Amino acid sequence: MSAVRYELIKKCKQTGARLGRVHTPHGYFDTPAFMPVGTQATVKGMSPDELKAIDAQIILSNTYHLYMRPGHEIVKEAGGLHGFMNWDRPILTDSGGFQVFSLSDLRDIKEEGVTFKSHIDGSKHFFTPEMAIEVQNALGADIIMAFDECIPYPADFNYAKNSLERTTRWAKRCKDAHKNTDRQALFGIVQGGMYKELREQSAYELLELDFPGYAIGGLSVGEPAELMYEMLECTVPLLPEDKPRYLMGVGSPDYLIEGAIRGIDMFDCVLPTRIGRNGTVLTSRGRVIIRDAAYARDYSPLDPECDCYCCRNFTRAYIRHLIKAGEVLGIRLTTWHNLRFLLKLMEDVRKAIMEDRLGDFRNEFFSKFGYK
Amino acid sequence: MSAVRYELIKKCKQTGARLGRVHTPHGYFDTPAFMPVGTQATVKGMSPDELKAIDAQIILSNTYHLYMRPGHEIVKEAGGLHGFMNWDRPILTDSGGFQVFSLSDLRDIKEEGVTFKSHIDGSKHFFTPEMAIEVQNALGADIIMAFDECIPYPADFNYAKNSLERTTRWAKRCKDAHKNTDRQALFGIVQGGMYKELREQSAYELLELDFPGYAIGGLSVGEPAELMYEMLECTVPLLPEDKPRYLMGVGSPDYLIEGAIRGIDMFDCVLPTRIGRNGTVLTSRGRVIIRDAAYARDYSPLDPECDCYCCRNFTRAYIRHLIKAGEVLGIRLTTWHNLRFLLKLMEDVRKAIMEDRLGDFRNEFFSKFGYK
Repeated sequence: MSAVRYELIKKCKQTGARLGRVHTPHGYFDTPAFMPVGTQATVKGMSPDELKAIDAQIILSNTYHLYMRPGHEIVKEAGGLHGFMNWDRPILTDSGGFQVFSLSDLRDIKEEGVTFKSHIDGSKHFFTPEMAIEVQNALGADIIMAFDECIPYPADFNYAKNSLERTTRWAKRCKDAHKNTDRQALFGIVQGGMYKELREQSAYELLELDFPGYAIGGLSVGEPAELMYEMLECTVPLLPEDKPRYLMGVGSPDYLIEGAIRGIDMFDCVLPTRIGRNGTVLTSRGRVIIRDAAYARDYSPLDPECDCYCCRNFTRAYIRHLIKAGEVLGIRLTTWHNLRFLLKLMEDVRKAIMEDRLGDFRNEFFSKFGYK
Repeated sequence: MSAVRYELIKKCKQTGARLGRVHTPHGYFDTPAFMPVGTQATVKGMSPDELKAIDAQIILSNTYHLYMRPGHEIVKEAGGLHGFMNWDRPILTDSGGFQVFSLSDLRDIKEEGVTFKSHIDGSKHFFTPEMAIEVQNALGADIIMAFDECIPYPADFNYAKNSLERTTRWAKRCKDAHKNTDRQALFGIVQGGMYKELREQSAYELLELDFPGYAIGGLSVGEPAELMYEMLECTVPLLPEDKPRYLMGVGSPDYLIEGAIRGIDMFDCVLPTRIGRNGTVLTSRGRVIIRDAAYARDYSPLDPECDCYCCRNFTRAYIRHLIKAGEVLGIRLTTWHNLRFLLKLMEDVRKAIMEDRLGDFRNEFFSKFGYK
């Protein structure tokens, strides 16, 4: 039996979006779900208790970073990621593939694996599908990911085709190497660049391997939104109804809603934490750059419609002051608020699905937020 | 009537240390008290709720910094410091004197006031005793400080004497300029360098001005501990029994205990927050540099005897990882723990006074901590 189980609760009559629940060894999470990113075994600036206070049901952490520092053996000794970071709810780890291809200086891709240099100290490493699984088995997340190649955008057809076929072979090796199938569910990742037929080929190849869940990778890498939606529209219908579908690296409000409408159940992105650290916050009326002088004497909350600790206790003027002064509390508050904003958005999305009105919700949200 | 009232509860029969309570417009705090420093209207890394969780009863903030950024008018508009930073317990602001003399690049001291350059943008400012009070009246702290000159160590006798006499004249001007005597208590600051007769002269001059509390400034500036204790021993007995006594800028565990033994009621220091940010923590067995490789696989808490959130939930190995990886949560946890360590120390000191055994407590603590 698989370590995770997808429960379909309802489909939105207006859009076809899925309301569901994913059951894992560390409890369930409701879908569509946004997963805050805790790259180095910590969601930047947030404590585990604070993540619970904003109703984060699952978080993501990065295999590449933890393999580099502190090392997966230390995390394992500490009781896995759950014990190490003191988080008792579900965790998903990526495979390290994305970081190997995006962060490392030099890389050499062979069938056997990838040689790359550490972004920390320049040391040379060789990573294989088997190692990606070994490290993820040590980390002990509830959901782990197959090792894939993330190709750049744009990429030509032949490169994309060869790459996706290798990604399939790597997925097979990941599956063979995976030990803890009862405690950790391994998801396959559909690749194929921006080519419909390659996305379909990738999906069909991975379906044969019968993973307990499927991710769609290599999107939101610089392509126009319409192209991403097209790729989703040709891929998602091929994926099994009874398994979760995860769109990797996506976290802007419009993409989250449009993804849910196209049948996606899970999302992750560093956007809310990263823009928060830079002093930008998400509000029901659009993005606000809180560093701007316009907010120096604004004694209202970041978002009057938000229920978070930050909005209930502090003003824009104070948060602006903290950010300008380089104070840690400033970063904490903008991060806290942005994460809560997206988690609340997903709660609203789930409610709209339950009420068969996600299309209407989309239009209302877009209009208020300032999206076209 | 003064805005603050000192209530003497008990004197330790073994040491003469005072157990007391200071009543302010925002509630009381128990003494001897350690005041966490919130330089820029935030105790670095901590939220107001967290400060309450570690039982901080009063915090300090810095007039110079808030005058520079965001400006005292903005703080005033936001409801004073209490409203601006959302802290409803007592606050003390310093006068800006120490920062003008320690942080600014260029300064020119005249009888009227001090010209100096901002540490932020190099802009030129002129600060007078009247302005120090005007700014502090705008900030609205429960206890405010007279504008004094902090002389360097060592300083020759004549310089120290001239400076303390000017500090007395400035204290008189501060008193005359102070508006909100019913809501803010203005403390005088005893100076005089490392000269007993000058400390006595300063104390006597300030006593004539009848302040509701007295601080001792210009100590812990690089002199040997014994010299500081000598200065305390000649100064404290001159101060009134019915008013609080505040030793400025002191916060190492030994100084806190030795200060309490010599009759001090209030202390402040950036030490716990500053060393925390650098990865050093205070424990019952002495300082621990958590960055050290020795703690990479240490799955015990920072201090097994500590009751703080950090020690109840996280290991040295995890905190070391966070600090090494430059993660905000690491700084938060070491800061949280260090502040709690000193606040708990003061709780223990107060308990020992109540039980007439502060001398014994001192010896036990020193021996365990590793002090000679």
